[in-house]
Amino acid sequence: MALADLQHVVRNEEGISSVIEILGQRFGNRFQTGEAVRAQHAHTTTYIPAQLPDGVVFATSTEDVQSVVLVCAEHRVPVIAFGTGTSLEGHVNAPGGGISIDLSGMNRIVAVNAEDLDCTVEPGVTREDLNAYLRDTGLFFPIDPGANASLGGMAATRASGTNAVRYGTMRENVLSLTAVMADGRVIRTGQRAKKSSAGYDLTRLLVGSEGTLGIITELTLKLYGIPQAISGGVCPFPSVEAACEAVITTIQMGIPVARIELVNALGMKALNGYAKLGYPDTPCLFVEFHGSEEGVKEQAEMFGEIVAEFGGGPFMWAAAAEERTKLWKARHEAYWAMMTLRPGARALATDVCVPISRLAECIRETEEDIARSGLVAPIVGHVGDGNFHVQVMTDPSSAEEIAAMEAFVSRLNMRAIAMDGTCTGEHGVGQGKTEFLAHEMGAGVDFMRMIKQALDPLNIMNPGKTLPPAA
Amino acid sequence: MALADLQHVVRNEEGISSVIEILGQRFGNRFQTGEAVRAQHAHTTTYIPAQLPDGVVFATSTEDVQSVVLVCAEHRVPVIAFGTGTSLEGHVNAPGGGISIDLSGMNRIVAVNAEDLDCTVEPGVTREDLNAYLRDTGLFFPIDPGANASLGGMAATRASGTNAVRYGTMRENVLSLTAVMADGRVIRTGQRAKKSSAGYDLTRLLVGSEGTLGIITELTLKLYGIPQAISGGVCPFPSVEAACEAVITTIQMGIPVARIELVNALGMKALNGYAKLGYPDTPCLFVEFHGSEEGVKEQAEMFGEIVAEFGGGPFMWAAAAEERTKLWKARHEAYWAMMTLRPGARALATDVCVPISRLAECIRETEEDIARSGLVAPIVGHVGDGNFHVQVMTDPSSAEEIAAMEAFVSRLNMRAIAMDGTCTGEHGVGQGKTEFLAHEMGAGVDFMRMIKQALDPLNIMNPGKTLPPAA
Repeated sequence: MALADLQHVVRNEEGISSVIEILGQRFGNRFQTGEAVRAQHAHTTTYIPAQLPDGVVFATSTEDVQSVVLVCAEHRVPVIAFGTGTSLEGHVNAPGGGISIDLSGMNRIVAVNAEDLDCTVEPGVTREDLNAYLRDTGLFFPIDPGANASLGGMAATRASGTNAVRYGTMRENVLSLTAVMADGRVIRTGQRAKKSSAGYDLTRLLVGSEGTLGIITELTLKLYGIPQAISGGVCPFPSVEAACEAVITTIQMGIPVARIELVNALGMKALNGYAKLGYPDTPCLFVEFHGSEEGVKEQAEMFGEIVAEFGGGPFMWAAAAEERTKLWKARHEAYWAMMTLRPGARALATDVCVPISRLAECIRETEEDIARSGLVAPIVGHVGDGNFHVQVMTDPSSAEEIAAMEAFVSRLNMRAIAMDGTCTGEHGVGQGKTEFLAHEMGAGVDFMRMIKQALDPLNIMNPGKTLPPAA
Repeated sequence: MALADLQHVVRNEEGISSVIEILGQRFGNRFQTGEAVRAQHAHTTTYIPAQLPDGVVFATSTEDVQSVVLVCAEHRVPVIAFGTGTSLEGHVNAPGGGISIDLSGMNRIVAVNAEDLDCTVEPGVTREDLNAYLRDTGLFFPIDPGANASLGGMAATRASGTNAVRYGTMRENVLSLTAVMADGRVIRTGQRAKKSSAGYDLTRLLVGSEGTLGIITELTLKLYGIPQAISGGVCPFPSVEAACEAVITTIQMGIPVARIELVNALGMKALNGYAKLGYPDTPCLFVEFHGSEEGVKEQAEMFGEIVAEFGGGPFMWAAAAEERTKLWKARHEAYWAMMTLRPGARALATDVCVPISRLAECIRETEEDIARSGLVAPIVGHVGDGNFHVQVMTDPSSAEEIAAMEAFVSRLNMRAIAMDGTCTGEHGVGQGKTEFLAHEMGAGVDFMRMIKQALDPLNIMNPGKTLPPAA
């Protein structure tokens, strides 16, 4: 994706100068304008080029965030929330410059209400931090996008990951948010009651809004009891289609699988090399079952029968906890493992999600398309949800390769949309997919725009993201 | 609640006359203005007085709805969606007159995608209709608010009911909606993919918006496999608190109970009399377990141990399916059963929901408050979610009783809000709770109002509902 294709946001030079001066006075060394710091706060993970903010505030409280938003609102300067910078669609870029608010210092765990199976955290707490903190309580937070992302960022992008097939996504697991809105006011979107019919669902409106409507400064999240028993392992299949058919049957039979992940043959080759796994270089499913001792046994048996039906196996169990940890660590590092297939290349990770009945067809057509396009592009996916990622690695200096990649991505997204699926199951729209959002949502995008205009009339909250430019 | 307390909406007499003429010509006998029909389309269930619409269109298609909305937008006349009229907070009333759109004729089941565990239906399909239709597929739709409500109405009020503790509410179970917006445009809020990060969550924005932002004309819903095994029954407890403590422990231990319902002593007296149940007139829990044969047995055993710990029992199993049907039919008819405690009275059903750690305390204080207030007010509740209903029955001609009831309801709602709970777990805000929404949501209400203003600038969509008047 060339810089020229990203949405243009006009720089307000005068406003930016004023804001830099004010924030410098107000925040002292918690406000940084050096290039190295600014570069760290722009997008670097994928093919999307970095666009640096003009300064970075290291916030430590909701009041800090409010203070920055008020100044930026007064001077009409963009405000971009930053968690860990692990998003894949340029969410933290500053196409019109402006101020990045680094929330990593807001990393307090405010409350754990073990009795209510919930907790309240600041947005800079990462999922690994939270689970480390919770260890002694017997509870855990399941959502797991791979990267050790911040929980604020995960909410803002409506993230999910390997566990979503059982535990849902951030959409289902955020009970309530505190957010600083574009006019500087602070709202709390709900109480801690497990369900509510109290007015418009501001929680769900902010979840997935990518910092374009407000900045999350506190989250109340659902927690779950650590399962009594966990089992899992890896199962090879003769083809991606056979693996998909096994997944479809597993879901349709209602087996409450906690994780069911596909890695295709090229992906397995990369993973085996990178993490020294020693599995075959054929399409594999990584699975995990959670439950009681009896329940897990029952699930594994049912799954075993399905696997056999589709010619898969032998199932390689990871009985010991350390073995499972190694296995999932490898799965989580797939992005970096797959980068080794083409050193020096830049990657783009696609993120389509389709109704599960169309999954095998969608992956088969996509593998054929990859082969025809001559791209280096392994596939991994949260296939229990119908979601899979193609990691396309191209030489950034080759216009030809970039054109081939862009054409492929466009075909893939349109293929998924035509199958009643989405161009993004969990990564979000950011800068990279606004064009496809318009295809997918039709007139719905106009209503999103009306909401944006109503809540952020000055367009200072992460401008140039999520919504396509008005036609 | 006196009529005078409900939000006033100015009648646009000229607009209403024009619209009546146009709709009469356009819809023939599918447009009715007779008083009997209009009265059937105003609120009658609870204490809130009926406010009749000026006419009723019997819609049979999205195009019908669109046509009515466009005419009403042109003449600035209110449009009120009507499903089955079973809502409890005056949602279908017409405080400024206008046109009721009866959607009960839009009762087609558009598609059942058994492989994807979803279906698409028109809004007038009721939950019982859908489940009858699904019977042969091995699938079911769990959300169950008691009344045989329309699925469109259930989405619009973010309904839930007895099964929500396991299956979630309409918030979690609507995949996508088709809606006619205030400007007459039709949008589809999402695709059929199980998860998505594609832009603002318009689905969740419309779910619970009570017809104030758009009118739902099609819903795609999640389905579930009918459990292999179901078991359940009724368990008496020495006190409401003991029952609540048993519920709290059950939830905290992660037992995936499908239903866990409390009926207090007065409620049991009414139910026993009405449905000839023969249970003791002491606080009881109605429970149900779903799963495999083994799983259900395991859940029931664990629950049995918890019950014993809190002095409950003996557990009376409803082994046969017919017995269970009778039991849940009685539970669903609790509203009417409890009306027999005071023939001729009118009822108001409260709907607070609190974090489960506060449930026992909230119910205990509420029972004490009822006793002090001298009200006839049994309690039933979806206590696994922390949600319970007090059904207050008063003589509509007694100003004193009405004042006592209003004061009690206010104390109850404020008590729940102070416990980090909500004034409405599932009934919605409608006309009856706008004042409490303001208390609960604080500045959040202003942002709801900004969204309403942006999406319905003429305020024609169900005016006078959900949002409190601007301060």
